[in-house]
Amino acid sequence: MSATPVMVPFYGEHQAGITTRQKAHVSFVGLDLLPGTDSRDLAGVLAMLTDDAARLCSGRPPLGALEASSAAAVAGLTVTFGFGPGLFAAAGVAQRCPEGVRSLPAFATDRLDRRWGQTDLLLQLCSDDPTGLAYAQRRLLRDAAHVCELRWVQRGFATTGHEPGEPDDASPRNLLGMRDGSANERDPAQVASVAWCAGPGPMAGGTQLVLRRIRLDLERWDDVDTAAKEMAFGRRVADGSPLSSPAGTSEFTVVDRTASDDQGFTVVPPNSHAARAQARSGSERMLRRGYNYDDGPGADGQRDAGQLFAAYQADIGAAFVPVQRRLAQADALNTWSTHVGSAVYAVPPGAAPGEWVGQALLT
Amino acid sequence: MSATPVMVPFYGEHQAGITTRQKAHVSFVGLDLLPGTDSRDLAGVLAMLTDDAARLCSGRPPLGALEASSAAAVAGLTVTFGFGPGLFAAAGVAQRCPEGVRSLPAFATDRLDRRWGQTDLLLQLCSDDPTGLAYAQRRLLRDAAHVCELRWVQRGFATTGHEPGEPDDASPRNLLGMRDGSANERDPAQVASVAWCAGPGPMAGGTQLVLRRIRLDLERWDDVDTAAKEMAFGRRVADGSPLSSPAGTSEFTVVDRTASDDQGFTVVPPNSHAARAQARSGSERMLRRGYNYDDGPGADGQRDAGQLFAAYQADIGAAFVPVQRRLAQADALNTWSTHVGSAVYAVPPGAAPGEWVGQALLT
Repeated sequence: MSATPVMVPFYGEHQAGITTRQKAHVSFVGLDLLPGTDSRDLAGVLAMLTDDAARLCSGRPPLGALEASSAAAVAGLTVTFGFGPGLFAAAGVAQRCPEGVRSLPAFATDRLDRRWGQTDLLLQLCSDDPTGLAYAQRRLLRDAAHVCELRWVQRGFATTGHEPGEPDDASPRNLLGMRDGSANERDPAQVASVAWCAGPGPMAGGTQLVLRRIRLDLERWDDVDTAAKEMAFGRRVADGSPLSSPAGTSEFTVVDRTASDDQGFTVVPPNSHAARAQARSGSERMLRRGYNYDDGPGADGQRDAGQLFAAYQADIGAAFVPVQRRLAQADALNTWSTHVGSAVYAVPPGAAPGEWVGQALLT
Repeated sequence: MSATPVMVPFYGEHQAGITTRQKAHVSFVGLDLLPGTDSRDLAGVLAMLTDDAARLCSGRPPLGALEASSAAAVAGLTVTFGFGPGLFAAAGVAQRCPEGVRSLPAFATDRLDRRWGQTDLLLQLCSDDPTGLAYAQRRLLRDAAHVCELRWVQRGFATTGHEPGEPDDASPRNLLGMRDGSANERDPAQVASVAWCAGPGPMAGGTQLVLRRIRLDLERWDDVDTAAKEMAFGRRVADGSPLSSPAGTSEFTVVDRTASDDQGFTVVPPNSHAARAQARSGSERMLRRGYNYDDGPGADGQRDAGQLFAAYQADIGAAFVPVQRRLAQADALNTWSTHVGSAVYAVPPGAAPGEWVGQALLT
């Protein structure tokens, strides 16, 4: 095993796990700092976790690991760090917490369970191999345990393969059977302009993450016929094409909210999800990267399935907030979807060589 | 959507999901029959579930589904049916329940939680695509709901890819970092002789499944050095080779429990897992097909990770029982592993054309 810490500038300009290829599995791990944690404790644990992540993501065992095989099996892991308001406060730099992360307004349709609530620290682990992901997760938790308490783990999955005959770039289907992420920017320059905070300042090259746990009533959704599903979504089930374009059009065609049929009716219903969610301005754009979850029944006998909605943006206040207000007001999908968890994080840029993730932001 | 039930003889001689290629994801779904369920109710629900499974496994929507896209996305799904003693009793043929399934003896190391206990019916769903698996699961549960109550879902995963430089047939690593399944027979004729019940009788071509939920204390395992891990397993971490053979030998080399070093010490410790688990006779052989699980923390705050041990054999009394007795007595791995769940099932052969799974056995 390596004997000395190695600071690997493994993130480059940005942290991985945001604009890099979506993996099949995710663990969002929410941690709270133990009472009394100060900026020095924080610097220590973040340096350690940065080093752990750098090693694990390159298939090497973290410091202190007694054998290398489990780490070698970690396939294309990414680890992404997010900071909640409590972490900025513990670091003594509460004022540096970005405005969009300080407090998220309540929305009329929220039915939030504190169990899935805001935490001080988020670790987002993505991998195509859930066995390697589980190993990395327990090693990171171990090295965080002297400063952090585990609040929750939200595990999700995405379909990464394609059905025969599908386009290679087809968005994966979610548990509703709908293609998910069609409205995302695809041009790398546009993706970057949506995701990354502009400079100057220590958040330049970072982003802001909204993580919502959206429970779906899939049993009732299954009883809705295709036409009604398409009216609720504003898109076709089969190919994801907008109702404003002919069937078979690419899912990436922009939804035309104003198109009307020959009788003058709006083709994409104004309360459809695609219409309500569509950005009304450049600043309302987000990079959505949702995962499905299917948990339970737990000890309480309850089944729980739906979507881990994860969206990255330069400013939550300018993007997620107005969009979610519109959705809470009148999204047809609200009939089947309930937001039961919510947390927001400042995601700092990638670590500079020799630094830990967030060092410039917190010190 | 199809308008009439179609009985598809999709299983052939045997049910799928046992000797077919292991998939990346499994759901073991345990169901109990509602009080008062009689043989006619049972025939009805099994006919329906057989038809659902046949359709879903071929990418077609089950009867009553209102759209086809979600089913089309089901990639290589298998559905395997298992029957507990309660199901035979409800069918009025309690005496046909195979002896090995009637009752499993208690083992000294058992710490069983009723939450993961025996059920009347088991549905085992395997797929490389967890989204498709989730869809199939909810459709099957829906069609079972008038006769069955959901007791538990145990979701597991296996690494199906390989690390660079590994042999193509390398067994996947489990959460302990050890290769899992090395002792399985590999020759198809031998696999068949281990897995399938011989005739005559309605279980011919079927098998018996033991499903154990084995919680692993991974944090403490991580503090064990490689040499001690290898002594506990009787095999090497890196390549799975038995300690009785030189390093680099294939993991499939038979463990020699009697080999001794030049000082006369047994090379494979007698209390190592490989030594204790090794079949002492042909009838002790099982086809092991374990999956990892990594759940929690649940609402109770508890983390829970380990292995879903699934083993198929012609006769549980002749195979699993003596092997597990030996392991309970003195398996070095017992330090880190605890059996917290246990259930056994008769897995009938594949359905004949026009019949439902288990029809010959239950009627």
